[in-house]
Amino acid sequence: MAVTHVRGAAPGGRPAPAPSGVVRPPGRPRDTRCDTAIIQATLTELATSGFGGLSMEAVAAAAGVGKGTVYRRWPTKGALVADALATLAEPYEPHDTGSLRDDLVAALNSVRRHSIQTLSGRIMPRLLAEKETHPELFETYRQQVIVPSRERVASVLRRGVAEGELLADLDIDLVTDMLVGPVSYRQYTSGSHEVSGTRIGQIVDTVLGGIRLC
Amino acid sequence: MAVTHVRGAAPGGRPAPAPSGVVRPPGRPRDTRCDTAIIQATLTELATSGFGGLSMEAVAAAAGVGKGTVYRRWPTKGALVADALATLAEPYEPHDTGSLRDDLVAALNSVRRHSIQTLSGRIMPRLLAEKETHPELFETYRQQVIVPSRERVASVLRRGVAEGELLADLDIDLVTDMLVGPVSYRQYTSGSHEVSGTRIGQIVDTVLGGIRLC
Repeated sequence: MAVTHVRGAAPGGRPAPAPSGVVRPPGRPRDTRCDTAIIQATLTELATSGFGGLSMEAVAAAAGVGKGTVYRRWPTKGALVADALATLAEPYEPHDTGSLRDDLVAALNSVRRHSIQTLSGRIMPRLLAEKETHPELFETYRQQVIVPSRERVASVLRRGVAEGELLADLDIDLVTDMLVGPVSYRQYTSGSHEVSGTRIGQIVDTVLGGIRLC
Repeated sequence: MAVTHVRGAAPGGRPAPAPSGVVRPPGRPRDTRCDTAIIQATLTELATSGFGGLSMEAVAAAAGVGKGTVYRRWPTKGALVADALATLAEPYEPHDTGSLRDDLVAALNSVRRHSIQTLSGRIMPRLLAEKETHPELFETYRQQVIVPSRERVASVLRRGVAEGELLADLDIDLVTDMLVGPVSYRQYTSGSHEVSGTRIGQIVDTVLGGIRLC
C-alpha cells in the first residue's frame, strides 16, 4: 500500500533531500523514490510556470502522487521549492592539469553546460523575474548554482596567483566576472544560445593576455 | 467627449508608436496621450506579470481608459506588447572623445544604466522565461534593447581597429561580449546589482590589456 503511489520517480535523478521541518518517525525508512518524483516535478513546474504559477496540485499530478502525500512531506510551497532548488547543486570536481589556461577552459566549460536549455538554466529567469516578490528563492538559487559555478573558476585563478603565474594583487572576483560573464550573458541573450569551445578558449586567452605576468 | 477618458498619461514619456494594423481616418489627429498611457501601463504590467499574466483589462484599468479604447487601437495582446517593446529603444549618442578607453567606459556606462532596477531591465527576465512559448517577443526585445546597446560598444571597437590602436583582425563580436557580458551578468546575478564606475574602468583596462597593440 505504501508503495502503490510511487510512480514517475525520475530514474537516475539525484536523491531528494529530507523535507524541511518534518520529524522522521522511527521504523522502516520511507521510500525516497516518491520524494524524488515530487522534487523533479517541482523543478519542471518551476521552469514552466515560475513560483507564482506553481501549484501543489500540479506537482502532485505530475509526480503521480496524491496531494496529501505532497503536503505531508512539505507543508508549504516555499518549503517544497527551497528543497527542490537545493538539489540543483552539482558535485564539484576541481581541475588541475598543471596548465592554468586549460584549467580555466575546463571550469568555463562547466559554466557553459548550464544554459537556458537545461532545467536549472530555465529556472534562473523565472526566479529572476520574481526576485522582487520572492528574493529568498533567487538567493537560494544563487547559493546552490551560481556561487559554486563561480568558485570553480575562482579557485583556478587563486592557484595561478599562488604559483606566481598571475599578478599577486589580482581582483579574483572581477576576473571571475570577466570569464563567466561573457559565457552566461551570451547564452541567455543571443539568438542561438550557442557558445562554442573555440569561443571559450578565446575568452580565456584574451583575459589572460590582460592579467598574466610575462 | 473624445478626451474625457484620457487619464494617467505618463508625463515625459516617449510618444507611443502608431498602433499596428490600424488605418488612421482623415481629420483631427487622435490625442496621443491616451496611447502613451496605454503603452506605459503595458510595460509596467509586462514587468510585473509577464506576457502570460498580462491582461488587456488590467492595462486599460492602469491606463485609466476603457477596455474598448485599448482594443480599438490594438486588436490583440501580441500587437500591443510588440508596440510597447518598440518604445524601449533608446536614442543613440555615439561617444568620440578621442580616447578609446574613455569611449568604451562611456558606452559601458550606458549598458550599466539598463539594469534589473529599470523597467526595461525588469522586463528582460520575464521575456526570457517565456522565450519557449513566445520567442518573437524576446526577439523584439533583443532587437530594440540588446542589439543597440551592444552596437554602442562595437562601434568604439571598430574605430579603435580603424585607427590602428587595436589588432586589425579583432573579433569585434567576441570583445563586445567580453565588455558587456561581465556588466550585464553581474547586474542580474549578484546579490546587490551594483556595478561601480571603478569596476567598469577595470573591465575595460583588463580587456584592453589583452587586445591593445603596444
